[in-house]
Amino acid sequence: MRIKYDDMLREFKRVFKKKGFSEEDSHEAAVSFTNNSVDGVYSHGVNRFPRVIEYIEKGYINPDAVPEKLNSFGAIERWNGKLALGNLTAKHCMNRAVELASEFGIGCVALQNTNHWMRGGEYGWQAADKGFIGMLWTNTQPNMPAWGAKDRRIGNNPIILALPRKEGHVVVDMAMSQFSYGKIEKYKMENRELPVPGGFDSNGELTKDPELIEENWRVLPVGYWKGSSLSIVLDLITSMLAGGNTTYEVGKLGEDEYALSQVFIAVDPEKFGDTSEMEEKINESIQYTKNSDPSMNGSDVYYPGERTKNTRQENMRLGIPVDEEVWNKIKSF
Amino acid sequence: MRIKYDDMLREFKRVFKKKGFSEEDSHEAAVSFTNNSVDGVYSHGVNRFPRVIEYIEKGYINPDAVPEKLNSFGAIERWNGKLALGNLTAKHCMNRAVELASEFGIGCVALQNTNHWMRGGEYGWQAADKGFIGMLWTNTQPNMPAWGAKDRRIGNNPIILALPRKEGHVVVDMAMSQFSYGKIEKYKMENRELPVPGGFDSNGELTKDPELIEENWRVLPVGYWKGSSLSIVLDLITSMLAGGNTTYEVGKLGEDEYALSQVFIAVDPEKFGDTSEMEEKINESIQYTKNSDPSMNGSDVYYPGERTKNTRQENMRLGIPVDEEVWNKIKSF
Repeated sequence: MRIKYDDMLREFKRVFKKKGFSEEDSHEAAVSFTNNSVDGVYSHGVNRFPRVIEYIEKGYINPDAVPEKLNSFGAIERWNGKLALGNLTAKHCMNRAVELASEFGIGCVALQNTNHWMRGGEYGWQAADKGFIGMLWTNTQPNMPAWGAKDRRIGNNPIILALPRKEGHVVVDMAMSQFSYGKIEKYKMENRELPVPGGFDSNGELTKDPELIEENWRVLPVGYWKGSSLSIVLDLITSMLAGGNTTYEVGKLGEDEYALSQVFIAVDPEKFGDTSEMEEKINESIQYTKNSDPSMNGSDVYYPGERTKNTRQENMRLGIPVDEEVWNKIKSF
Repeated sequence: MRIKYDDMLREFKRVFKKKGFSEEDSHEAAVSFTNNSVDGVYSHGVNRFPRVIEYIEKGYINPDAVPEKLNSFGAIERWNGKLALGNLTAKHCMNRAVELASEFGIGCVALQNTNHWMRGGEYGWQAADKGFIGMLWTNTQPNMPAWGAKDRRIGNNPIILALPRKEGHVVVDMAMSQFSYGKIEKYKMENRELPVPGGFDSNGELTKDPELIEENWRVLPVGYWKGSSLSIVLDLITSMLAGGNTTYEVGKLGEDEYALSQVFIAVDPEKFGDTSEMEEKINESIQYTKNSDPSMNGSDVYYPGERTKNTRQENMRLGIPVDEEVWNKIKSF
């Protein structure tokens, strides 16, 4: 089934209000979850909504909490998220980073004690919509083995890089695992092999078989040792700047994932003067890449973020695809 | 053969002086190439030295050039490298970023018209040695196909992330290709397969065979589509901030690689107060990761940068391993 944008927004807002969020926060949070869904990131939109409600009920997410600034020095700030809803806090911190960048050219906000921001790309798009370069990342619970290890002791720690562009922002939103848990589940449900190896079987061999990966969830870091290293350093930089939990400490809290650390950086590309000449060069460069000789007949080369825009347009027109069971559950809250 | 650190340094310095560098620049440049070699990054140390001399002779690297500040606004600056030696300019710009971070908490220097910085990790270690978090990246000539493409139209654009730590800095230095050209060459010369697929054969199939990859140099981005996307956005952010060449424009200059764009960011973790408590948490986190259940008997899990320290100690003690032919060539300059 497909649900119209406005109907999904209204439903999410109703539930947030019922769970104790203010009118304004309910609206903003509902916009975040609806936008993620309309952009095609269902795993961090409509499909994740029931778990967020569960986390509110468990007390991990506090509807009344107001994030607090702990420290500031020049262009950097440290905030305590107070376990408010992760999306709202991330949006707030990206906004603060943009304000600092307006003042200093670059701005950085480090955030401790926050909740899952759902789709990190949202805050990259947010910075880019304001004309800023956005660079942000988060740690997670331990959900991936380090390179050379069997058990999951590092996070998949997504990073987002966003560049503003009139013709469509360039936005990368990537976790340090080759595939998300949701994607592996999806391939398993559809009885399909992953397109490339995504984890290890019980014998420690790389495999494309989602069922074998699910036996122990030994997922593969992006680029093997490279993604493993990147995950480790991102976690440590994040927790150092935020004064917050490392992935290791998040893991000690138990099975559920909360009290994370995040970093938000914004840069104003216009502080060095008019950017129209550079914008033209960037458009040329994107066109050059898109004009590559395709590896398969009829296939296309995309710039990062390009297909998001297309999905958004399609889902705005046709409605957002939703699993009926999920939708009924949301309506029952 | 193995060459003692001081002997290598003296030899590099002699050649730089002969090529027209000042006493001070010759010393600093020789230190850079010798340090890269002692750390085990021979491809950007002793083995690369002859090509650097060739670039000086071709006029791509200008021994007399002095980088110039073009713009500044608060915590960000833009510099023109004037095609000076890439190592010296990168060192200078990382230093400026650290100075800006001392003043504002975070600092960013964007650099246009510079030369290859050789081993980017050097400037990560540099920031960390001063107690700063370093984040830096560079674009390159087009040397990798975008995901879904056959021909090489994007760069492998290395990124470096460094965290200072008394017990040993945590430093990641990674290009966006799964393997460097040098590494693929090395496996071919040793008649060995790559440990994981590193590129495509002429039929467009992924392969571990270095000889098949070399037929068209269609190398694989880290994490397939993910590294391809990251490469594209890093290039565009870099050239936008630097007002410099994109990878596309570097490619238009011809076969040789010069006039690159780079970004250097430093953050001072001590601006929010004493970090000793966080340092302890970070050490715990590293220990937790290192204590992972190893995937193979007797194997170890390393934190990024750990093995560099070991190689450095070994090469300091025993001398730096050098190919005799390369060394003779250097002595002949």
